[in-house]
Amino acid sequence: MDKDRLEKQIAFITEIDKAKQILRETILMDASRQENDAEHMWHLAMSVLIFSEYAKDKNLDILKVLKMVLIHDIVEIDAGDTYVYGTFDYPRVAEAEQKAAQRIFGLLPEDQAAEFMELWNEFERNETEEAKFAKALDCFMPVLHNYQTKGKQWQKHQVSSDKVLARCSSRIPKGSEALWDYVKELLGDAVGKGYLNP
Amino acid sequence: MDKDRLEKQIAFITEIDKAKQILRETILMDASRQENDAEHMWHLAMSVLIFSEYAKDKNLDILKVLKMVLIHDIVEIDAGDTYVYGTFDYPRVAEAEQKAAQRIFGLLPEDQAAEFMELWNEFERNETEEAKFAKALDCFMPVLHNYQTKGKQWQKHQVSSDKVLARCSSRIPKGSEALWDYVKELLGDAVGKGYLNP
Repeated sequence: MDKDRLEKQIAFITEIDKAKQILRETILMDASRQENDAEHMWHLAMSVLIFSEYAKDKNLDILKVLKMVLIHDIVEIDAGDTYVYGTFDYPRVAEAEQKAAQRIFGLLPEDQAAEFMELWNEFERNETEEAKFAKALDCFMPVLHNYQTKGKQWQKHQVSSDKVLARCSSRIPKGSEALWDYVKELLGDAVGKGYLNP
Repeated sequence: MDKDRLEKQIAFITEIDKAKQILRETILMDASRQENDAEHMWHLAMSVLIFSEYAKDKNLDILKVLKMVLIHDIVEIDAGDTYVYGTFDYPRVAEAEQKAAQRIFGLLPEDQAAEFMELWNEFERNETEEAKFAKALDCFMPVLHNYQTKGKQWQKHQVSSDKVLARCSSRIPKGSEALWDYVKELLGDAVGKGYLNP
């Protein structure tokens, strides 16, 4: 056994424990508190297992999608969470996240660091079918959280229906037309119930 | 699209949000608070990705291992967490967990419910190579948490070195001899540093 290699892997698995303390704007489905990145990545991985039949591409590499969602927000340990409906300096955020990816994945042995950098960049570029499906679910899950909590965070941040539709329409249908149909219905229902402003 | 099928899947993905509120005896690596099941399942899935090269069986089905670890503690939503060094009525816990698996996985469409029940039972039986590796990591990660927190929970529950060795020796070497070698060293070090009582 290569002790130096194992020590690097231990350093990485220890470092990413911090993802459990990075809070997102999404709240738990019982509205009790904010969700953190580790919880979100687990829930997203579960959604990959449950909803993969609705992916546009029927020959998806599910293992690859799982890897992507399991690591996609690790960069927020350094770069912090960015609220999707907030105003933020996109190039600055992208730069901070690239730097974070290099530092954190760079704790791993070179081959694993390279694999994770590639997976993370593939997710961010949103071009392959695996990335598109992962991004679709990453957009779908917060909609579900918002619906289940009667739009608590939509109301808090005064997010209107057209904003949610604009964001989701650029992401969800690329990965799954079936889930996109469902989301449109859900958002209509949310407006009808007063969870989301028209 | 089969609307009834999708509604069942939505009910499941909503129900398992509760795993984010099931606290374990393990604490975060900065000792700030208890870890919850969703965080643990994510961290464990990450450990599968990082440490798979150390599995005894070099032809493991990694996707299957990932599925197992991602779902293995969902039953605790109903059955609660069982502290491994506590005293508990094993048949009662096993029965409660079986019942929980049936209720929670049973929210899914029949085919998916059956797949998850099978995966969960396979993990519990600890007979296949995939289950043995998953169980090895499920035993390895809390040791790492304890080491990183200077044995805080070992001290709190007055767990001695022979107890940890007994538990780990029946699980870790079955899945990974390399990680078992590392754990023995780590436990010796923990005793030397006073984190763990001899």
